[in-house]
Amino acid sequence: MYEYSREVYYYETDQMAVVHHSNYIRWLEEARTRYFAEVGLPYEVTESLGILSPIIGLEIEFKAFGRFGDRFTVKLCMPKYTGVRFDIEFIIVNQNNDTLAQGKSHHAFVSSKTYRPVSLAKAQPHLHQGMLGCIEAGGYE
Amino acid sequence: MYEYSREVYYYETDQMAVVHHSNYIRWLEEARTRYFAEVGLPYEVTESLGILSPIIGLEIEFKAFGRFGDRFTVKLCMPKYTGVRFDIEFIIVNQNNDTLAQGKSHHAFVSSKTYRPVSLAKAQPHLHQGMLGCIEAGGYE
Amino acid sequence: MYEYSREVYYYETDQMAVVHHSNYIRWLEEARTRYFAEVGLPYEVTESLGILSPIIGLEIEFKAFGRFGDRFTVKLCMPKYTGVRFDIEFIIVNQNNDTLAQGKSHHAFVSSKTYRPVSLAKAQPHLHQGMLGCIEAGGYE
Amino acid sequence: MYEYSREVYYYETDQMAVVHHSNYIRWLEEARTRYFAEVGLPYEVTESLGILSPIIGLEIEFKAFGRFGDRFTVKLCMPKYTGVRFDIEFIIVNQNNDTLAQGKSHHAFVSSKTYRPVSLAKAQPHLHQGMLGCIEAGGYE
Repeated sequence: MYEYSREVYYYETDQMAVVHHSNYIRWLEEARTRYFAEVGLPYEVTESLGILSPIIGLEIEFKAFGRFGDRFTVKLCMPKYTGVRFDIEFIIVNQNNDTLAQGKSHHAFVSSKTYRPVSLAKAQPHLHQGMLGCIEAGGYE
Repeated sequence: MYEYSREVYYYETDQMAVVHHSNYIRWLEEARTRYFAEVGLPYEVTESLGILSPIIGLEIEFKAFGRFGDRFTVKLCMPKYTGVRFDIEFIIVNQNNDTLAQGKSHHAFVSSKTYRPVSLAKAQPHLHQGMLGCIEAGGYE
Repeated sequence: MYEYSREVYYYETDQMAVVHHSNYIRWLEEARTRYFAEVGLPYEVTESLGILSPIIGLEIEFKAFGRFGDRFTVKLCMPKYTGVRFDIEFIIVNQNNDTLAQGKSHHAFVSSKTYRPVSLAKAQPHLHQGMLGCIEAGGYE
Repeated sequence: MYEYSREVYYYETDQMAVVHHSNYIRWLEEARTRYFAEVGLPYEVTESLGILSPIIGLEIEFKAFGRFGDRFTVKLCMPKYTGVRFDIEFIIVNQNNDTLAQGKSHHAFVSSKTYRPVSLAKAQPHLHQGMLGCIEAGGYE
């Protein structure tokens, strides 16, 4: 399980005086970016090889409000990777360990030229091995 | 079925040269805001009565990339309303009628003071009647 | 003078219950994009010719708060164009004609490959002529 | 001089493959928030006392493009404070010490109820003393 944490920014709040829910989607991306960088598969490398990994699906439950002054932590893992697609399971908690949100996102590898699916297993065996090594069961729910 | 449409803004793109997926979440809110205003249940009225309607869940599939230069349309309906919660079913298409995203979001009514669930049926029977009148089956999938 | 108008989105507010000031910067871009599209110089065309027009400077005064429920109008004109750079003068008002913000932004033409300055006059004489035809004195202040 | 630093997020880029300029405005707010927290004048305290400090003006020069993969640093100081208003002078650099942007922002204290100007000197002498202690000449230019 990987953990990514930072403080809530003022501009992430809305007039309900809580974090606007669209920012949770952005926090998840921040966390994935750091995660893949730390396991040796940074976006910059993948993109320089002509491979993008867009999100293709998301299920998320919003459980409690985040607020300015909070420090959130995204906990994530990759329970599934097929060579073409992968899933990320996540939970977002605040400094009191209240669950703000949890769920799962789905991602695919596509060519940065054609935007069509790419088998990482075939196109970049080295990165494929790296991905295989990261598979880890979730179990936040 | 309600339709909301506008052009993609430049700042909504990312370096993949497509719309960043977090903006779809924002477009859905834009569409819901207009929808509820047009059926006579504007956020301003609800909030002035001390009632908020935060999102509590979302399932979304990202099917194709949106791009700068596109004009998107959010089509939505409210297939379910219980007096306390409601669902919104949606599809987002571009000017060529390509599906960019589709899914369902879940919402609840909460007090703007306590952030706890509120029964609109009890708290605001008039708004409750309005909501009942909007229930409409989806069937985008 | 060109006018661009739309409603404030909910997600553009912050916990001060007013529009977060960073969104004014985005509204200005929305307005410029529409403006240049309507005078026949759309970003898509310019970018397809390998020319970008980044902002290189901005002076803005924030005069009053925008709010959810407001409809804002950006009024702008291009008082100066040198073949390499141009200025945009702007004022943002709400539906009551209260000034929300006003100021001036500065822009340059650069190559999308090298990110270095480009003379539109030399590189694209046709677009240059179009720009010349748009010069218009401001005078909002 | 105070320094605030973090990595660029993917979603902060646009299709020019550089950081969208509106995010610089947000970075400046992040930096001010941390700055005032660290000198003992956190927004939460000020807001809980019914005092907001909105931005009332900004002059900024955009000098170079920020990119995904960069780590930026905002360096700021408060060269002027009058009891009612204050200025922040800033420069934003990347990891190579290239200047991305620089300028000055202007802020006022207002009541969170009336949104009208407030003299911090009168309303909150203790915070006023804290502000006085932070005045520091700039000189980035």
